[in-house]
Amino acid sequence: MKFVTFRRQEEEKIGLLIHHDQEILDLKTAEIAMSGQNLIPNTMIEGIELGENFLKRCIEIYEWVSKKDNREWTYSLDSNEIQLLSPIPKPRKNIFCIGKNYVAHALEIGKAEDIPEYPMVFTKAPTAVTGHLANVYSHHSITQKLDYEGELAVVIGKRGVSIPKEEAMDYVFGYTIVNDITARDIQQRHKQYFLGKSLDTTCPIGPSIVHKSLIPDPHHLQITTKVNGEVRQNGNTKDFIFDIPTLISVLSQGMTLEPGDIISTGTPSGVGHGMNPPKYLKAGDVIEVKIEGIGVLKNRIVD
Amino acid sequence: MKFVTFRRQEEEKIGLLIHHDQEILDLKTAEIAMSGQNLIPNTMIEGIELGENFLKRCIEIYEWVSKKDNREWTYSLDSNEIQLLSPIPKPRKNIFCIGKNYVAHALEIGKAEDIPEYPMVFTKAPTAVTGHLANVYSHHSITQKLDYEGELAVVIGKRGVSIPKEEAMDYVFGYTIVNDITARDIQQRHKQYFLGKSLDTTCPIGPSIVHKSLIPDPHHLQITTKVNGEVRQNGNTKDFIFDIPTLISVLSQGMTLEPGDIISTGTPSGVGHGMNPPKYLKAGDVIEVKIEGIGVLKNRIVD
Repeated sequence: MKFVTFRRQEEEKIGLLIHHDQEILDLKTAEIAMSGQNLIPNTMIEGIELGENFLKRCIEIYEWVSKKDNREWTYSLDSNEIQLLSPIPKPRKNIFCIGKNYVAHALEIGKAEDIPEYPMVFTKAPTAVTGHLANVYSHHSITQKLDYEGELAVVIGKRGVSIPKEEAMDYVFGYTIVNDITARDIQQRHKQYFLGKSLDTTCPIGPSIVHKSLIPDPHHLQITTKVNGEVRQNGNTKDFIFDIPTLISVLSQGMTLEPGDIISTGTPSGVGHGMNPPKYLKAGDVIEVKIEGIGVLKNRIVD
Repeated sequence: MKFVTFRRQEEEKIGLLIHHDQEILDLKTAEIAMSGQNLIPNTMIEGIELGENFLKRCIEIYEWVSKKDNREWTYSLDSNEIQLLSPIPKPRKNIFCIGKNYVAHALEIGKAEDIPEYPMVFTKAPTAVTGHLANVYSHHSITQKLDYEGELAVVIGKRGVSIPKEEAMDYVFGYTIVNDITARDIQQRHKQYFLGKSLDTTCPIGPSIVHKSLIPDPHHLQITTKVNGEVRQNGNTKDFIFDIPTLISVLSQGMTLEPGDIISTGTPSGVGHGMNPPKYLKAGDVIEVKIEGIGVLKNRIVD
């Protein structure tokens, strides 16, 4: 299942992406039509917290709708009626991000000694989060070096602390795409990465959270980032320096992870800052991050 | 007014610290007794969001209670009946922290070239937050270099982005104390500060949020940190490299600040890591951070 959050008539709702990702199934409306009951929560985080019961209920609703011809619980993704949001529009804490998790990327922005021995972890503010097809501000008055970073992100499914590597995958709910848009000049000027990573709208997430059952091997996914149709990044998660169980285990040493937490796993080589000459983002640019089995996250830069 | 959050009979409530910080006034219970109305929200963040109306209501309730002999709406701070929590127990995002904001501290942990030209901003996870008198875990299985950092923290009162310096103080709700407890070995090993700053219970906050009307000059407050009664830090906010308007203005450039956001302004010299030989925290140690006009934040380290 692919989980989405969308807005319809000023209301924020959760749904499933169906029909080859072309339509959204409104879970709560369909559930009420099906059973008169209302067990589907209002937000994705609450759904994730419900665990297996949430998944089972979603399957029930999907199967019931699939047998009907009636389309009153589904909306076309390109209809004007609905707007897709980040699958988790208001994360309860900052997004966890991993720096330099691909050797080729560490080298394109630094030197051999910059290849990390231990995961580098920084965060992006929740106020930076936006969704698929949303506009991203160029922030041209404060940065001249806005850059993309296409990344696979892991969504945590249950609470845990000091999680051993061998159990780490049990804590995963699913996967999504993050474009870790970065103001390189601000990132460098302030030493710690946080500020240059946290400008409003610079954390597009989506289009959906793909349940882990659909991704048999998250360590073998092609990631492609295009800017205005030109391929800039073309990597594969098999080249991670630190794999997902290592990241979950290291992050959770003494720090509790919670349902709905988002861990963005780092970007492959091909960022604009590493090109010769560098190519930064400007108003009008369209960025598409595609990850095999997950989808395409598309955003446009605007002034 | 000094605002607190406390737990009584499994319920989380907000209150005022009164009678020389010795008692808590339960705002909601007193309000209902006073007027039969229930306008006081359940959480501090909701209160801060209500703005002036919240302040006015709190004053009304306080004045009404002051005229009564009846003490049924107040609890002694050292009663077993109540437990003080962080004034904001569950921040909606990570705590913003400023690195090296006092020259003497920058020098004790580094070199002259480490004195920052621009504010260094990193974050602490909301899961690290705990309150006054709460136990702080030593995390002895993962760190051998746990250290204190007494700091003045600013609580944001209203939403704003790209706030000019001249208007920055209008966005302050009040002040509190943060002990930015740090695992120095983890901080250094992972390069970016976040992980070494985010272990569970390593962000004591409190005891209260003091409304800004009680602090005429936040840039002239003595900060003293004691470990087991021994004075370790004895600084003054007049020695900030970047003052509060500068921090609010720099942080908010392109990044929206929200009511309830917490900005910890950095620590003066005297951390254990800077001593010769270094003195790190161990189980049994009691840390007290005292800030003039705000109070004392006291915590004990436990294994």
